[in-house]
Amino acid sequence: MRYKDWVRGELEELSKSLGFRYIPKEELENRLTRLRRGMEEEGMEAFLVVQKMDCYYLSGITQDGLLFVPLEGKPLLMVRREVERARVESPLEEVLGFKSVRELPSLIRAHWGRLPQTLGLELDVLPVRDYFRYQDLFPDTRFMDASPVIRDIRKIKSPFEIDLMRVAGDIGKNVYQEAREILKEGMTEIQFGGLLEAAAKRYGHEGLLRVRSLNYEAYTWHVLSGPSGGIVSQSDSPMGGLGLSPAFPVGASLRVMRAHEPILVDFGTCYHGYQADETRMFSIGEMDKKFIDAYNACREIHDAVLEETRPGADCEAIFQKTLRLAEQLGYGGSYLGPPGLQTRFIAHGIGLELNEFPFLAQGQSYPLEEGMTFAVEPKIVFPGEGSVGLENTVLVTRDGYEILTPLEQDIFQV
Amino acid sequence: MRYKDWVRGELEELSKSLGFRYIPKEELENRLTRLRRGMEEEGMEAFLVVQKMDCYYLSGITQDGLLFVPLEGKPLLMVRREVERARVESPLEEVLGFKSVRELPSLIRAHWGRLPQTLGLELDVLPVRDYFRYQDLFPDTRFMDASPVIRDIRKIKSPFEIDLMRVAGDIGKNVYQEAREILKEGMTEIQFGGLLEAAAKRYGHEGLLRVRSLNYEAYTWHVLSGPSGGIVSQSDSPMGGLGLSPAFPVGASLRVMRAHEPILVDFGTCYHGYQADETRMFSIGEMDKKFIDAYNACREIHDAVLEETRPGADCEAIFQKTLRLAEQLGYGGSYLGPPGLQTRFIAHGIGLELNEFPFLAQGQSYPLEEGMTFAVEPKIVFPGEGSVGLENTVLVTRDGYEILTPLEQDIFQV
Repeated sequence: MRYKDWVRGELEELSKSLGFRYIPKEELENRLTRLRRGMEEEGMEAFLVVQKMDCYYLSGITQDGLLFVPLEGKPLLMVRREVERARVESPLEEVLGFKSVRELPSLIRAHWGRLPQTLGLELDVLPVRDYFRYQDLFPDTRFMDASPVIRDIRKIKSPFEIDLMRVAGDIGKNVYQEAREILKEGMTEIQFGGLLEAAAKRYGHEGLLRVRSLNYEAYTWHVLSGPSGGIVSQSDSPMGGLGLSPAFPVGASLRVMRAHEPILVDFGTCYHGYQADETRMFSIGEMDKKFIDAYNACREIHDAVLEETRPGADCEAIFQKTLRLAEQLGYGGSYLGPPGLQTRFIAHGIGLELNEFPFLAQGQSYPLEEGMTFAVEPKIVFPGEGSVGLENTVLVTRDGYEILTPLEQDIFQV
Repeated sequence: MRYKDWVRGELEELSKSLGFRYIPKEELENRLTRLRRGMEEEGMEAFLVVQKMDCYYLSGITQDGLLFVPLEGKPLLMVRREVERARVESPLEEVLGFKSVRELPSLIRAHWGRLPQTLGLELDVLPVRDYFRYQDLFPDTRFMDASPVIRDIRKIKSPFEIDLMRVAGDIGKNVYQEAREILKEGMTEIQFGGLLEAAAKRYGHEGLLRVRSLNYEAYTWHVLSGPSGGIVSQSDSPMGGLGLSPAFPVGASLRVMRAHEPILVDFGTCYHGYQADETRMFSIGEMDKKFIDAYNACREIHDAVLEETRPGADCEAIFQKTLRLAEQLGYGGSYLGPPGLQTRFIAHGIGLELNEFPFLAQGQSYPLEEGMTFAVEPKIVFPGEGSVGLENTVLVTRDGYEILTPLEQDIFQV
C-alpha cells in the first residue's frame, strides 16, 4: 500500500476512532482573526510561526513545520517530514512539504507573490543561530518579536479549548480518586508518582507538560513527603523537592514516605495539549496537626482568591490580598516558601503551556478577563519538616469563575 | 531551623543516603581543561554557559544558574534561586546568588577584574531575546557561538559518565525483564507504556529524556503495535506512532494491542542525567512470520554496525554499509522508514542529550573515537502493518565496543 493513501484513509479513521479531535476550521479562523488584529497594531506584515505550541494553536498540527501567516492572504503551512498527516490534522488549505529552510523565500514568494517587509518571529524562544539564518535568507526584511502578540491572544480561551481543559481536569479527578487505592505505607515518593502517572496515561493523559522556556522543565511526579516538601530547588515555586539526582533535583525522590507526615501531590494532566494542574494533600494515618492547620489556611487563601475572581479584578491586587491574609493567619514567614526564598505569585496562567498569562503575582497589575484560565496554588512551607498546599485550575467566567479541576478538597487519608 | 543550615547539613545527608552522586572535583577540572583547549582554539576569552545540561556538565548543578568560565582564572557559578543547594552540589569554589542578569557585568567585574572582549554563548539554543539583552549588558564584547566547543568535548565520555550510563542501562534491563509480566492481552499501548515508565521510576529512572532542540520532545512511552508502527510523525525517526492527539501525535496510543502483531518498545532511561536507549520487540502469542524475518534482518544490521565499531571507523561509511546490507536482505524499500520517508541515520550519539555526536548518518564523515557513546537502531517499517527494530546503547572502547544495555535480544513473547 502507498503510505500516502493509507494516511488519508485508514490512519484518519483510526485516529478518530481513538478520540482524536481536530481543530475546527471556524475555531482556527477566529484565532487567525484575533492574531491579525494584534499583528496590525504592531505593524507586522507577516508572522513566521516557529514554536510548536504556537504552531499547533494556529494550524492544528504539531508536526515538524513552520507556519507563514500574512496579515492579508492565506496562511501557508510548511511541513518538513510528514506532510500527509499534517493535511489530515490541519483545516488550513495550503499545506506543503519542504526539506530545508533555504526553500522558504521561494515558497513564500510562490504563495504570496513577494517577501514581507516586516516579519514577526517568536524571539522569546527562537535560538540565535536560527535567527541569523533567517536574516541571511530574508536580507531586506525587518524582524520583529511576535511573541507578545501570540501570547496575548492565547491567554483568552475559547469554548473549544475550555472543553479540552475540562477533559484534562476529569482525567486528574480520576487519578486522584485512584490514588487513594495506590498509596501504601513503605512506598517511595517516586514509586507513588510513577503509578499516578501510569493511571493518568491509561485515561489518555499525554505525559509531557509544557513550559515556554529554554531551561525550565515540567513534570508530573511532584510527590513531596515530609522533609522533601521543605526543599527549594531550580524552579520558581514555593518548594521543589529532593528529586532523584543533581541532574533532576526536583519532584519525587527515592525517600520512603512515612505515616502521619504531609504528602503533597502536585499533579498536572494534559489532553490534546491542554493542561490542568492541581494539588491535593495525602497522608498515611492522620496528618500531624501543625500541617492540618496550615492546610486549612491554604484552603482559606484559595477561597479568598476565588472570591475575587471575575473579569476586571486586578491580578496583582489579588496576590497582595493573599499576602495579607497569610500574615493574619499566622503564616507570613512560611507562605509560598521558606523565609528569604518566598515566591511572588499565587497563580499562573495555564493552557498549552504552564506559564501563560495571567500571573496573579507581584508586578502583574492588569485585569482578569473572561476566558482566562489559571492555576491557583497557595502553599505553606516548613523547612526541614514539610509543606502543604492546595491547587485548582480555574476559568474566569462572565461573572465569576468555574473550577476546571472539580475534586474534593479534603485531605486524602489512607 | 534556618533553611540554609538545614541544606548544608540534613539535606546533604539525605541526598547522599538516597544515592545522589556529585561530580568529583577532579572530573570537573578535566572537563574544564578540555573546554579551555577548545575555547583557546576559537579565540574565546570567556564562555557564559546558559543551557541546563551544559551547566550541569561544567558545574555539577541543574539549579537555575549561569556559569562564567574564563580562559584564565576560576569559573564563577551564579545561581538565581537556591544558592545553598548549589553549593552542596557543585565542587566549584566560587558560587554566588543573583536575582537578575542586570547584575552580571558587575558580578563578572568583581570576580575577574574586567569584562571579556570575546564571550561564547550557546547560540544553537539561546533565545534571541536573551541574546539582545546580553548585547545591551556587554556593549563592548564580541559574542561567539560556543556550542560547537561544548558539544565537541561532551561527545567523549569519561569513566565517571560511562558508569552512570551503565546504571541507566541496568535500569532499562530491569524494566524490560519486568515488562514480560506487565504485558497482557487487552491492554492499550499507552497503558503498557505507562506501566513500563512506573517500573523504571521505581528503579530511579528520572523520567524526562532530553534533546537539544527548540521543538523536538523526547518521551519514553514509545510503544507501537501493529499499524501504529507504520506511522511516520514529527520526529526524524523511521516511525513515530499514532500518539494520543494532534498535540502529541507520537508514541503510544489508546489502541488495544492484538495477538500476533509486532509490538515495538523503544524505551529510554535516565540516571543522573545520563541516558540509555534501547528497543526490543514484544508479541502476544507468536509474531507473524513476516515481522520475525524482518526483525532478524534488523539483528543482522545491528551486528554489522558493531563489527565496524572501533576508534577510527568512519561514521558515514558504517551507515552506508547498512544501506547496502538492508538492500541485500530484501528490505531496501522499508529500511528506516516507508518509501520516500526513510531517515538517513542508523545511530545517534547519546549522553545527557539524545542528539549528541556522533551521528552514524549520511553526510557525517568523521571517525569514531574511544569514549564515544551512541544508540544504534536498525528499524524496518511496513506502512499500514507494523514495524520492527532493535536498539542498543554502545560505548566505543580502545579496540572495539561495549554494549551499555546488556539485555537478551530475542523477541519477548508472552
